Amino acid sequence: MPSYTAPTKDMQFVLHDVLNVTGSTIPGYDELEADFTSAILEEAGKISSEVLAPLNPVGDREGCTLENGVVRTPTGFKAAFEKVKEGGWPGLDMPEQYGGQGMPYVIGTAVGEMFSASNQAFTMYQGLTHGAASAILAHGTEQQKDTYLPKMVSCEWTGTMNLTEPHCGTDLGLMRTKAVPQDDGSYKITGQKIFISSGEHDMADNIIHLVLAKIQGGPEGIKGVSLFIVPKFHVKDDGTLGARNGVACGKIEEKMGIHGNSTCVMNYDDATGYLLGEEHKGMRAMFTMMNEARIGVGMQGLAQADIAYQNALFYAKDRLQGRDVTGAKNPDGPADPLIVHPDIRRSLMDQKSFAEGARAFILWAATMIDAAHRSDDKDADGLVSLMTPVIKGFLTDQGYDMTIKAQQVYGGHGYIEEWGMSQYTRDARIAMIYEGANGVQALDLVGRKLAQDGGKHVMAFFDLVKTVIKDNAGQDAEFDKAFLDPLKAASKDLQQAGMYFMQNGMKNPNNALSGSYDFMHMFGHVCLGLMWARMGLAAKKALAGDTSDTAFYETKLATGRYYMARQLPATALHLSRIQSGADPVMALDAANF
Amino acid sequence: MPSYTAPTKDMQFVLHDVLNVTGSTIPGYDELEADFTSAILEEAGKISSEVLAPLNPVGDREGCTLENGVVRTPTGFKAAFEKVKEGGWPGLDMPEQYGGQGMPYVIGTAVGEMFSASNQAFTMYQGLTHGAASAILAHGTEQQKDTYLPKMVSCEWTGTMNLTEPHCGTDLGLMRTKAVPQDDGSYKITGQKIFISSGEHDMADNIIHLVLAKIQGGPEGIKGVSLFIVPKFHVKDDGTLGARNGVACGKIEEKMGIHGNSTCVMNYDDATGYLLGEEHKGMRAMFTMMNEARIGVGMQGLAQADIAYQNALFYAKDRLQGRDVTGAKNPDGPADPLIVHPDIRRSLMDQKSFAEGARAFILWAATMIDAAHRSDDKDADGLVSLMTPVIKGFLTDQGYDMTIKAQQVYGGHGYIEEWGMSQYTRDARIAMIYEGANGVQALDLVGRKLAQDGGKHVMAFFDLVKTVIKDNAGQDAEFDKAFLDPLKAASKDLQQAGMYFMQNGMKNPNNALSGSYDFMHMFGHVCLGLMWARMGLAAKKALAGDTSDTAFYETKLATGRYYMARQLPATALHLSRIQSGADPVMALDAANF
Repeated sequence: MPSYTAPTKDMQFVLHDVLNVTGSTIPGYDELEADFTSAILEEAGKISSEVLAPLNPVGDREGCTLENGVVRTPTGFKAAFEKVKEGGWPGLDMPEQYGGQGMPYVIGTAVGEMFSASNQAFTMYQGLTHGAASAILAHGTEQQKDTYLPKMVSCEWTGTMNLTEPHCGTDLGLMRTKAVPQDDGSYKITGQKIFISSGEHDMADNIIHLVLAKIQGGPEGIKGVSLFIVPKFHVKDDGTLGARNGVACGKIEEKMGIHGNSTCVMNYDDATGYLLGEEHKGMRAMFTMMNEARIGVGMQGLAQADIAYQNALFYAKDRLQGRDVTGAKNPDGPADPLIVHPDIRRSLMDQKSFAEGARAFILWAATMIDAAHRSDDKDADGLVSLMTPVIKGFLTDQGYDMTIKAQQVYGGHGYIEEWGMSQYTRDARIAMIYEGANGVQALDLVGRKLAQDGGKHVMAFFDLVKTVIKDNAGQDAEFDKAFLDPLKAASKDLQQAGMYFMQNGMKNPNNALSGSYDFMHMFGHVCLGLMWARMGLAAKKALAGDTSDTAFYETKLATGRYYMARQLPATALHLSRIQSGADPVMALDAANF
Repeated sequence: MPSYTAPTKDMQFVLHDVLNVTGSTIPGYDELEADFTSAILEEAGKISSEVLAPLNPVGDREGCTLENGVVRTPTGFKAAFEKVKEGGWPGLDMPEQYGGQGMPYVIGTAVGEMFSASNQAFTMYQGLTHGAASAILAHGTEQQKDTYLPKMVSCEWTGTMNLTEPHCGTDLGLMRTKAVPQDDGSYKITGQKIFISSGEHDMADNIIHLVLAKIQGGPEGIKGVSLFIVPKFHVKDDGTLGARNGVACGKIEEKMGIHGNSTCVMNYDDATGYLLGEEHKGMRAMFTMMNEARIGVGMQGLAQADIAYQNALFYAKDRLQGRDVTGAKNPDGPADPLIVHPDIRRSLMDQKSFAEGARAFILWAATMIDAAHRSDDKDADGLVSLMTPVIKGFLTDQGYDMTIKAQQVYGGHGYIEEWGMSQYTRDARIAMIYEGANGVQALDLVGRKLAQDGGKHVMAFFDLVKTVIKDNAGQDAEFDKAFLDPLKAASKDLQQAGMYFMQNGMKNPNNALSGSYDFMHMFGHVCLGLMWARMGLAAKKALAGDTSDTAFYETKLATGRYYMARQLPATALHLSRIQSGADPVMALDAANF
């Protein structure tokens, strides 16, 4: 039976030792004192370990069922959702005005990691509601906000996002769902949406669907797409629920994983919808949800990697098999634990150095989102916009690989469902796909984000890296060699790749696009390298002080050294692939494949 | 509905253009004329596409069931197994003396790829029988061979291998299953074995279990392990079946994939067993099966990658989404097919260049196995023994990654079970685990095989690479640059890694073992690089002749160029990791993870 221990201590290290949140000028951050964040994280960890984690295999085994239009979630989900609501967790970082607790996004992110790690399928019900509420918050009228937000912030009502149709996902310009304007200002929505997570279920009184559709007579393609609020039950003027709207779940998909979340085919048949934001500006409004969702999905990659790592580590210490070649470590037992073997260590260190690096990366990004939202910091906004595809694409690819490594530690026991390791890989797999498949993230990064605002944000990123190196080099030769030199080399690789795109992408954009995936990965490695350098510096500082917890900080340094020595050098391989250009990739006619 | 087209043409290219099998001096190879191999491969392709492939999703969906001790295979499996038997496929490369067709192993391997690709779970019933029969052939008495082989060669009876117990898999010295000698020369076997593929089912009249157990009073640990033949039904002197033996299936495991194969807990309770080979030499006898099985498993990695690639390619040509940035390719349609996008091409080229390279690698290895068995070629035997862990570990890791890439091409449709892409990944996943987890393969390679016979075989490998380069360099500058130079660089990386192990492994074996996994992968890349160089040379030769099929050979060259430019340079990253030594990997105390 797999278990989950919330990484509270590690999060506290990142928040306070590395990011120094309490000292930040971002409004609200002064309240984030160590005792306060610790109390929240402990509480969140408790509900994650004790309530959500035990339901994770139940959800996987039972899945959701559709009968006579009613979707039933797995045993225990409803009661757990009640507990989550009672604790006020869904509204943690939502405005107090609508019943939330008004905390910074960075706290919501930390708690979100715990919830996702312990039960991804379950946490999606609440995560999508958060995204939908954010879109209404950003684009809704006062009346729309007053009508929907209080119930969505509390998760009495949940939310969904409806983009994909059977024939189109990435290319939403092909969309067929129609919206017909009515005299009262509402619209009649008709069409079919697929892959709708949490589309129908039995845990909320109402479900607020955000639906992309084309208003009849509007522009062709993506420019004619608008966003609508379509409640499952009509909401009367007094806020009570009326009749059922013209939307129904037609089917639940059989999936590879996240069985506990209902992935629905949703049929809209003259359903009443209300325009959210402006006509034909649906994509802009949807992207409010999407950007948040992409960071949330990147976090899922980390979260599944972390719980898988925790359980692999448990097994590696527990399972006796073979002997340490340098001398028995458990001479009185029949064999040594797996963890004595170098190749098992390699796997565990890959996982550990990824999870801790990714956690720091995500929390750092979350502080920039707070800076953008709370103090209107345009530079932070630009930087996080640049890094969003990296967070989504790199962390989910790597996170998935780490679940595979964790499963591998179990040998045959990892392949059977009994031990739960297979579920982590199956659940983690979706994160590479939804909210824009990772190839699309790479395209977004190289095709759009790199050049945004004249390339200002990517230059700002390189400046950040340079500053960390410049401010700290030359004080500790061992640290320079283990941390700063590799970071410098990796950052230089990344710059060279960017240069290659500039010099060769103009004459043939395929020279850039053929290397987009490698660029996304090398960018991710440099980000984690940067975070490891910052964590290393923070650990050194703590060790130079009067900490009694030297083991923690020395472990941090050793883990960082591993990342720098064994993972970060991947940038050179990515660069060499990028520099081979479009020719190898594009040489074949489609007919000759 | 996924489909499978047997890669007959590509196999013919490898067999005849690259390996020139007909011109080989290996006994029996002179019969392998192009028309003859083509006829066999066409027939095998037909049964694979028409009979086995359609059953693949059925097996996944239904799985096997255990009721009152009887295991039922999925609908249609039994009828298909009859067809396979009727065709004589199980005995293709088994001795004519026992009813086989006496063909070389290389032909069995080519056919095996088709069978595995189209239905891995199904083909395992026959594959394990082949392995068990090979062990009896190599180690059995004449009477044992006469009793079991004719029925096993025809697959009227199937076989299994029983190694793993609940508390031990890799470390078989911990085994508890006991064998008690009886007065009649037989043994009574008692114990529990787990993860027994095809352990019980309804497709054969008898099941011949090969079981590792410790003879009471024998040496401790691995040196006290012997191998036994334990038939499900006793075989009477006249060859007819008698009473049920004391062996029964206690449970079928729920697994991530290969649902169509029954993975059983087998309980032995005073079951009658017959010693196979010598007392306490069970591991040696088992390794006859194991080595064959490891190559077969490497082939499964390729096979799943290939069928996944075929279906990804179909989808990439069929699904319309977005536009080619360099100009619409399907201007009359609503969008261009996925295959116009560089990042989709990258993924498809990764898959294609892997599958074709791996196929050549496996078939080349199979010719060496034939050379070893048919003409007692010790050098070939040594080389293939060195490469066995590379074939198993590298091809299954990479093969799995390719199924993930293929699944990714489908976006959300890859994650739902309807399209079948999820099954390829779930089935392929086991190949990284069974027959020795890939970490154990890496250990075998670096800890044992590298130094075998004084390092003679690895030197022979490097000589082979050097000869290909030396014999062909300087004739075509473009080819040198695209093929031979990258191969030379990669081979040099591999040699440097070997050198590092020699120089640093003596003082601390962990310096070698920490890099074992990377070494296995870089070795694999060099092998595929070598095969691509040889395929490139063969294609050039064909193009210089009077072939009418220029597109095929030019495509081969373009695919090779891709592998050389984008995959082979991974050796440098592996080398840099290896050269970072044991310190980063081993730094932490187990308690500090």
